[in-house]
Amino acid sequence: MSDIPPSARTEVRRKPQRAHYDRATVEAIIDEALICQVAFNHGGSVHCLPTACWRSGDHLYIHGANNSRMTQALTTGECSVCIAHLDGLVLARSAFHHSMNFRSVVIYGRFEEVTDTGVKAVEFEAFVEHVSPGRAALVRAPSPAEMAGTRLLRIPLHEAAAKIRTGGVIDADEDMEIQVWAGVIPLKMRPGQPEADTGCTSANPPRLPAFIDT
Amino acid sequence: MSDIPPSARTEVRRKPQRAHYDRATVEAIIDEALICQVAFNHGGSVHCLPTACWRSGDHLYIHGANNSRMTQALTTGECSVCIAHLDGLVLARSAFHHSMNFRSVVIYGRFEEVTDTGVKAVEFEAFVEHVSPGRAALVRAPSPAEMAGTRLLRIPLHEAAAKIRTGGVIDADEDMEIQVWAGVIPLKMRPGQPEADTGCTSANPPRLPAFIDT
Repeated sequence: MSDIPPSARTEVRRKPQRAHYDRATVEAIIDEALICQVAFNHGGSVHCLPTACWRSGDHLYIHGANNSRMTQALTTGECSVCIAHLDGLVLARSAFHHSMNFRSVVIYGRFEEVTDTGVKAVEFEAFVEHVSPGRAALVRAPSPAEMAGTRLLRIPLHEAAAKIRTGGVIDADEDMEIQVWAGVIPLKMRPGQPEADTGCTSANPPRLPAFIDT
Repeated sequence: MSDIPPSARTEVRRKPQRAHYDRATVEAIIDEALICQVAFNHGGSVHCLPTACWRSGDHLYIHGANNSRMTQALTTGECSVCIAHLDGLVLARSAFHHSMNFRSVVIYGRFEEVTDTGVKAVEFEAFVEHVSPGRAALVRAPSPAEMAGTRLLRIPLHEAAAKIRTGGVIDADEDMEIQVWAGVIPLKMRPGQPEADTGCTSANPPRLPAFIDT
């Protein structure tokens, strides 16, 4: 898959060895995200709000109610979207060398609204499939009124970069004899016991995306 | 604990019943965060970057290298900080009523740099304790050079609000007979097996914060 040329905004200046500009890496990080953070300017202030997300092809998609401030503001100005997965605590022998393992993506650009009903239907189905593979065929699809009341927004991935920290502790030589546990504690989002709704008509718990499966 | 009066920026307009303006709720959500997302304007663009964080008293703290673009930009303009915990997938009988359980906080304001060496020492110790309780006393404390090379920034919590979605599925009456599993899949950040560093001198794995303990 092709590289995404770094822009003045996506080029990683701090620890550039952790930067990744290839599309496959960026997409893989996005595809493990259920939520992203969207930063935008509105009413003279900068805002940072979390929202659900999914990817289809060359775009990251989000959705919101017609009357939501965020979806209205996003189509009128530039924004930045951030996805960050915390993968581990890196516990060093000195306070200074503590770190965290993570995978993050930052996207710059502008959201556009998708109003075509056919495309909206396909993308809302993709959203359900992202959350629970195989589920879209089992649930009631959105009605025309539900579709009309929900805005679908997408931002292209052509100005995006990833930053990744992986691996173990990097301690100074003179600290190696300090008597303390040093290493990495991996962290991962895991599912708890499914909590069936009252009146649930199926005994089969849903499939989960591979990235949160145990 | 006292309430934080909602401002024009922190007042939740979309689903206001999910808003919380009391300090205890805001602090509890922040105290479960290892990373936050910081949105700020710099060089004519809005940026959204992830960074580690911890709370002490009335402030959220972050840190960064002296030459980091983010820490330089943050002390010169307003920003917005977002913390979001994804607590569960809410799987409804219709695509439209799917949701997610979450707890989020958004903070507005301006970071200030803390330059007092004594305060910096206390706060960096608090950061290590936040990541692994009891650890600060076991590791080498920051040297004067390490302290001087690291900026400590803090933002007050006096313009902050929380938004929480909790509970189960809310389906339309006419969808209740659809033959599909409906309910909540709880999600939680959990630790994997500790990966000790080569030459680790201690067999005792570290304590973890209560919110990631199994």
